[in-house]
Amino acid sequence: MGFAEAVHAKAVALCRHVVRMTAAAESGHPSSGCSLAHITTVLMYHTMRYDLANPWNPRSDRLVLSEGHAVPIIYAAYADLGGVFGTDPAHARKLTVEDLGSLREIDSLLDGHPNPAIGFPFFDAATGSLGQGISVAAGLGLAARLDGLDKTIYVLCGDGESREGQIWEALDFLADRKLTNVRVVFNANGMGQSDYVSPQQSAETLAKKAKAYGLHAITVDGHDPEALRKALAARPPKGKPIVVIARTVKGWGVKELQQVGYHGKPLSAKEVEAALAELVLPAGDPDFTLCPPMPKGEVPAAPRGVIAMPDPDLARLAEGTKFVAAAQKGKLATRVAFGLTLRALGRASDRVVALDADVSNSTFSELFGKEFPDRFVECRIAEQNMASVAAGLAAAGKVPFANSFAKFLVRAYDQIEMAANSCANVKFVGSHSGVSLGADGPSQMGVVDTAFFGSLASVRTPKGHPGAVVLNPCDAVSTYKLTCLMANYDGLAYLRTLRPDTPVLYRPDEVFHLIGQKVLVPGGDLTIVAWGYLVHEARKALEALRAEGLACGLVDAYSLPLADDFPDAIGLREGGRLLVVEDNYAGGLGGAVAAAAAARGARAACLTPERMPKSGKTADDILKFVGLDAGAIARRAKAVLG
Amino acid sequence: MGFAEAVHAKAVALCRHVVRMTAAAESGHPSSGCSLAHITTVLMYHTMRYDLANPWNPRSDRLVLSEGHAVPIIYAAYADLGGVFGTDPAHARKLTVEDLGSLREIDSLLDGHPNPAIGFPFFDAATGSLGQGISVAAGLGLAARLDGLDKTIYVLCGDGESREGQIWEALDFLADRKLTNVRVVFNANGMGQSDYVSPQQSAETLAKKAKAYGLHAITVDGHDPEALRKALAARPPKGKPIVVIARTVKGWGVKELQQVGYHGKPLSAKEVEAALAELVLPAGDPDFTLCPPMPKGEVPAAPRGVIAMPDPDLARLAEGTKFVAAAQKGKLATRVAFGLTLRALGRASDRVVALDADVSNSTFSELFGKEFPDRFVECRIAEQNMASVAAGLAAAGKVPFANSFAKFLVRAYDQIEMAANSCANVKFVGSHSGVSLGADGPSQMGVVDTAFFGSLASVRTPKGHPGAVVLNPCDAVSTYKLTCLMANYDGLAYLRTLRPDTPVLYRPDEVFHLIGQKVLVPGGDLTIVAWGYLVHEARKALEALRAEGLACGLVDAYSLPLADDFPDAIGLREGGRLLVVEDNYAGGLGGAVAAAAAARGARAACLTPERMPKSGKTADDILKFVGLDAGAIARRAKAVLG
Repeated sequence: MGFAEAVHAKAVALCRHVVRMTAAAESGHPSSGCSLAHITTVLMYHTMRYDLANPWNPRSDRLVLSEGHAVPIIYAAYADLGGVFGTDPAHARKLTVEDLGSLREIDSLLDGHPNPAIGFPFFDAATGSLGQGISVAAGLGLAARLDGLDKTIYVLCGDGESREGQIWEALDFLADRKLTNVRVVFNANGMGQSDYVSPQQSAETLAKKAKAYGLHAITVDGHDPEALRKALAARPPKGKPIVVIARTVKGWGVKELQQVGYHGKPLSAKEVEAALAELVLPAGDPDFTLCPPMPKGEVPAAPRGVIAMPDPDLARLAEGTKFVAAAQKGKLATRVAFGLTLRALGRASDRVVALDADVSNSTFSELFGKEFPDRFVECRIAEQNMASVAAGLAAAGKVPFANSFAKFLVRAYDQIEMAANSCANVKFVGSHSGVSLGADGPSQMGVVDTAFFGSLASVRTPKGHPGAVVLNPCDAVSTYKLTCLMANYDGLAYLRTLRPDTPVLYRPDEVFHLIGQKVLVPGGDLTIVAWGYLVHEARKALEALRAEGLACGLVDAYSLPLADDFPDAIGLREGGRLLVVEDNYAGGLGGAVAAAAAARGARAACLTPERMPKSGKTADDILKFVGLDAGAIARRAKAVLG
Repeated sequence: MGFAEAVHAKAVALCRHVVRMTAAAESGHPSSGCSLAHITTVLMYHTMRYDLANPWNPRSDRLVLSEGHAVPIIYAAYADLGGVFGTDPAHARKLTVEDLGSLREIDSLLDGHPNPAIGFPFFDAATGSLGQGISVAAGLGLAARLDGLDKTIYVLCGDGESREGQIWEALDFLADRKLTNVRVVFNANGMGQSDYVSPQQSAETLAKKAKAYGLHAITVDGHDPEALRKALAARPPKGKPIVVIARTVKGWGVKELQQVGYHGKPLSAKEVEAALAELVLPAGDPDFTLCPPMPKGEVPAAPRGVIAMPDPDLARLAEGTKFVAAAQKGKLATRVAFGLTLRALGRASDRVVALDADVSNSTFSELFGKEFPDRFVECRIAEQNMASVAAGLAAAGKVPFANSFAKFLVRAYDQIEMAANSCANVKFVGSHSGVSLGADGPSQMGVVDTAFFGSLASVRTPKGHPGAVVLNPCDAVSTYKLTCLMANYDGLAYLRTLRPDTPVLYRPDEVFHLIGQKVLVPGGDLTIVAWGYLVHEARKALEALRAEGLACGLVDAYSLPLADDFPDAIGLREGGRLLVVEDNYAGGLGGAVAAAAAARGARAACLTPERMPKSGKTADDILKFVGLDAGAIARRAKAVLG
């Protein structure tokens, strides 16, 4: 059997699986899967070099399925090839064709969309929310370049999916970085979910756009094995990444599946019979012709190990920068402390990489970027792409810190949630958090961030970690310590930093845990619980209250989730009284502390901005405007105390 | 003085204001403003037809400043022209040049970035988070077309900003809809914040991209008045929207401001002197040459009025659809009930418009779309653009319902937050909310949505409304009632709908308030507070508990923020006990209820998914997997009761 005949036969066999497994699951997207029949076959049985016995082999080519709903055909091919899966090498076994029958079941690893976190390591990232795959592939490609690994990252995208702006952020990024080890394939089947795709997403327009983006576009018949073989293995001209636009038929091989509006619908038992009658397996055995080649070279050891860091000496940390004097004086913005720590982490480990979205001179990731330009990824003004590139870098063993204003990271919350679903080891750092930046106004203030990341923090990942760890330090020392801890934590973490300078509160040898809190002032009739900038405002309030003879305690609750022993650690008793103050909108610390208090029968009041912020020249102006200045905190404390 | 000389003189005068006002504010972006000097002058003094005395005149051309940080030059022109501002016509006055000195002050309406909500109605949307302006302009343009108004929407974008994917979603949208009443101007000054822009964002590449997107690109010298006059007023060829690419100089007129990395920095007092010496006002008075023309025609009345709706008769509501039988049986998915209600609202008012992102056959906005194709806006797979288009439609008096899966709306949270900052009258509807959809897995489940919208719900807008109202109905009747209430509410609201069918619990004449709750089962030693799908699961738990002799109450807490009288309405006493159950991650209902309980000294326990969901064939499978099935609720209730 020749190559084309073998591919065709295998494509038919895979479609038969797809039709049957989605029918058995009573849900899924058989029409999308079938449109990828020949592309999947050429890629997974011929073009990709990968290690079926060891999906963690870093030399293997990788596949990112951006149009995640088409995943059954990938499962079918992987099972047919006997690829290994599992959560780690010690708990791995071969996927079998029989396993395909468990698609979408609660105790199956074959999820409805790619979900590597539950144990399908052929994939590097959870997909299913569209438009993210090219960015993930770019991160994997960047990591391969950093590690000197000769491999290719293939990514399959839908045509309708290409309407997502992130796709074009990612293509700009591929062009900027000449990432020729990423090969994008658009599956141009001409149909979306509810209708045909727009002419703006036709194969012709896609080719024109790709060319305008400085990429090399190759348009092929996506069911022609020879054309696919050539296009998928074509050599990129002059540093131009290749985009393959494959014209395909949605529901290839099965008439019933080729109707508009048949997206995401499995066939009935009767329709399956008719479909299998259409999908006739040619005589002969394709298996001798088709077998994926192994990657060359020995398997490198996975990069591991603790990044050891000493106690901070802020003045030494700042050496060579304009911040030495501020560090000596003990008044330093936490964004500066973060930038200095990131630079120090970069010196300690070459696994640390940093990304920014054109604000590195505000987030101070530039301190890292100037010293380690090869490990600094300027993503320009495109936060979505940045977040998914970071997820790709993490999947390849890097420790990426992705930086922007806390407000601008909101742009990437969908990508960040998908990174959390992937158990990605990514660190997001949002500067200018809360309202204290003042003058620029609400469009630059991170005020919903703790609610979003806090919600992720409430759930355990398949690895048993929180979906996210939120860190909101109030001073330079705690910023240093928590940044070092998050670098060594294998999971998604979010650090908030502040624009204004804040005084240093902690000694350099203070011991921090990633998830924890510090009792700054014990005892009192009321305990004020604060984080970030409001720790300082609360200290002022405490002084004012003390002057009136009222003794209050103060806790710096710098993390979410709260530690399991939070109530005991802060000495919370039944009938005790708490006042939680934070300069983000509700949904971060307050809800979590209130829940802890309400579980114990204690009283808690929560103070968050009472109205939307606006511009104000100083932090004090705006804190007063939203009802969070020291005076407002003291007044509320007195009200709580009756 | 000829036109070009007059424009030039005015441009110099505006730059002088920009330099002085940002210096006085001690922050701001003078270099960006100065790059727009001639573009602003030609637009605001010559090309735009608008009503300086009545910024609410719907016949006026509009300006969207996508690169919001450049706003001082717009303020300067508006003040120089004596434009009127204020929160409404009764509280309006002329802006003066003296007002410019208050830029960014806490009691000024001249915010650091465009902020119409605080009273600057020359703008339709808050900007400052980049990449959103073209989409807003598209919404304004669509509304003008629907209303038969002959006006043009101008939008100013940065070149670096064009890296944001949303820009290209918006340009696809303009091309698809042939929105020739939108005129995009790219301010190609070649510099971003931290560096020069990438070659991917150069004027040449921008022109190539725009052409590939099917638009008509005109490249001009952005400091050449005649070239700008021609380009800004050029007639679109063959239904092709025009994109003007204006090559400009960042910091035009002031050498100090032309350095890389000078983004977002005001000049010192000394530098201001030097700058003013460079910005020499030519002799002669440009004011007789330059005066914006008024729009033609009478001012139409603003569209107002209540959309009156009867009590629901589900079977009649479903007439002409396949859902009649289900409606008669009283078991209907809330997403279907929503779609049927939306169709009914469309019949009641032509202000109602609907948007979807290629999932209208899942959200059931297609029920509206089929009957009102002119008022149905298919946005394809581009949620960010959809959200901002909706904000634009709202600013023009429409009542837009923007639909997608709750999960996919996460993609647009930045745009939605900016819509909230704009006090936009937009309704977002997220279907497939929570975990009950089961089979598709976590990439399709809306689980962080209540935390995000709930955080917006915690803050008051300048209009005195909550930043968002969250609605999570459990049955078809409450979905109908709440959808009608949100249509009549002038503010941002978010409705969650469910994939599975749920039984009808409420009578058609049940009275609902937009913000409220329903006590379904009063009394008991413990009150279970639930919303959405978990109301039904809680009912099952109540039955099981009753069988064991334990009497519990049940509250359907369908909205956030909680009503002010929530604790009293549900009969919460000091020492009382609550159990909150919800199938979203923490941060929605639980935090708010816990805060209410902790304020009163009651006890509350919160149950949310204990681990990340995965695929499971049925809602029951997945609820059990995450610890939220009736059995888990009953067990927790017993534990709380001790």
